[in-house]
Amino acid sequence: MSKQAKVEIIAIGNELLLGDVLDTNTNWLCKRITGVGGQVTRAAMIRDDTVAIADEIRSALDRLPDLIITTGGLGPTGDDITHQAVAEAVARPLKLHAEALTLVKARYETLAEKGYIKDSALTEARKKMAYLPKGATAVANPVGTAPAAVLQIGVSTLVSLPGVPEEMKGIYEETLPPTLRAIFGDSYYQERAIIAHCGDESSLAPILAEVVDAHPEVYIKSRAKRYGPEVRILLTLSAAGDARDEVERRIQSALDALIAVLATAGFGVEDQPPD
Amino acid sequence: MSKQAKVEIIAIGNELLLGDVLDTNTNWLCKRITGVGGQVTRAAMIRDDTVAIADEIRSALDRLPDLIITTGGLGPTGDDITHQAVAEAVARPLKLHAEALTLVKARYETLAEKGYIKDSALTEARKKMAYLPKGATAVANPVGTAPAAVLQIGVSTLVSLPGVPEEMKGIYEETLPPTLRAIFGDSYYQERAIIAHCGDESSLAPILAEVVDAHPEVYIKSRAKRYGPEVRILLTLSAAGDARDEVERRIQSALDALIAVLATAGFGVEDQPPD
Repeated sequence: MSKQAKVEIIAIGNELLLGDVLDTNTNWLCKRITGVGGQVTRAAMIRDDTVAIADEIRSALDRLPDLIITTGGLGPTGDDITHQAVAEAVARPLKLHAEALTLVKARYETLAEKGYIKDSALTEARKKMAYLPKGATAVANPVGTAPAAVLQIGVSTLVSLPGVPEEMKGIYEETLPPTLRAIFGDSYYQERAIIAHCGDESSLAPILAEVVDAHPEVYIKSRAKRYGPEVRILLTLSAAGDARDEVERRIQSALDALIAVLATAGFGVEDQPPD
Repeated sequence: MSKQAKVEIIAIGNELLLGDVLDTNTNWLCKRITGVGGQVTRAAMIRDDTVAIADEIRSALDRLPDLIITTGGLGPTGDDITHQAVAEAVARPLKLHAEALTLVKARYETLAEKGYIKDSALTEARKKMAYLPKGATAVANPVGTAPAAVLQIGVSTLVSLPGVPEEMKGIYEETLPPTLRAIFGDSYYQERAIIAHCGDESSLAPILAEVVDAHPEVYIKSRAKRYGPEVRILLTLSAAGDARDEVERRIQSALDALIAVLATAGFGVEDQPPD
């Protein structure tokens, strides 16, 4: 099995830390990355503060992940400072990026043509979105106005995405895939889940430990699904690898072992209906 | 105005980073802390890995926040390792805590009496939840079985809460308030919001900058609320302080200034209906 690509996510915005907005971007990205066999090792939520963001990016780079994704802070207002913080973190100047400027210009022209805005003039606030750290590549935003940026720093690819979920998803799905494929390759991921009927999660601990030890390549997680007199524990098994057959065989083997030990302990098992 | 209490939140659990579970605990805590005048300066999401959790706690302690809250990893299974990671981070031994053991015992006895479980015996898995870092105080869990722990490390109070949202909220609201009052005192927070009708957020940037500069104690945030031909920008103004009158006066002054500059620029304004 080839090395699993490691990913860190940094969500940026005071509104997140004020509790004004629930960050759903990180969860969406975690699902996507897990689904292509990557591993999100860490996620952080940082205020609109250049020093704090730059510190966080430097710490992430020190851990040598394959990919660092930031979300938020790419817009036209003064508190949108992600590109500046990235530039400071990697000690590169912030420069007006010709391709990014073309992308921003084209978006405002389209918005003006459609009557969404009156004037497509490139004001300072709009031009600000085209200043990227030196060496970055601009990636088109099919939904909003701020382009994303991709910057290679040593072994790590640093991708800056907007914070508006529709824009973040649009870029991730429509214009970022070539960058993502270079990182994740064609790895395969599978997940299976069952529900165990048991007294409480503590009765499950010694049983799980046995199966976990015997199947180190499979990740097994327990989570209480329903409390009350009939406790239900959701057991999720997942694994990633290059070969589909191998991944499926490993999960099936762990699942069989788990069902056998649950039966021995007198616990009932049911399949988890797909979401 | 007295110093605003600084808080860091660390959410622990592989299920969060796999994207299997959306972390709503951090957002709930951010709202609560903002509401009593505190400031969440940073939040992180870490895997069930003792070294990674201990590293994160050490980094947080280095920034000298008033409060560090961890969520998750207090349960009976082998991947619940928060207390162990805290103990490693602060170089203290993990010890069987007499009061925590009494709390765990009492909860299992109640569950057995109510018929939720058959046997209230203190198995190793159940006893595990009563091992806390030396010097910690146990805080009763009114909802689940794992007690929370409070540990004072220099200027920082470190609180470990369970990850199940109902348990986390139950402790925060029912048994943790004395600890929280010692940190946040009686500070006051107010928030006001209006909606500006404007072409797009970029037209708003220079206008906002003027009001932000003139009212440094008030936090002003813009966020696009509706796209399309009639763009709506939600503007939130908030401030915290010791005196209610002073906080209200500052927000009202910033709000008046904002409405005035928006009118001058020809943008309509409407009140934001309460949530």
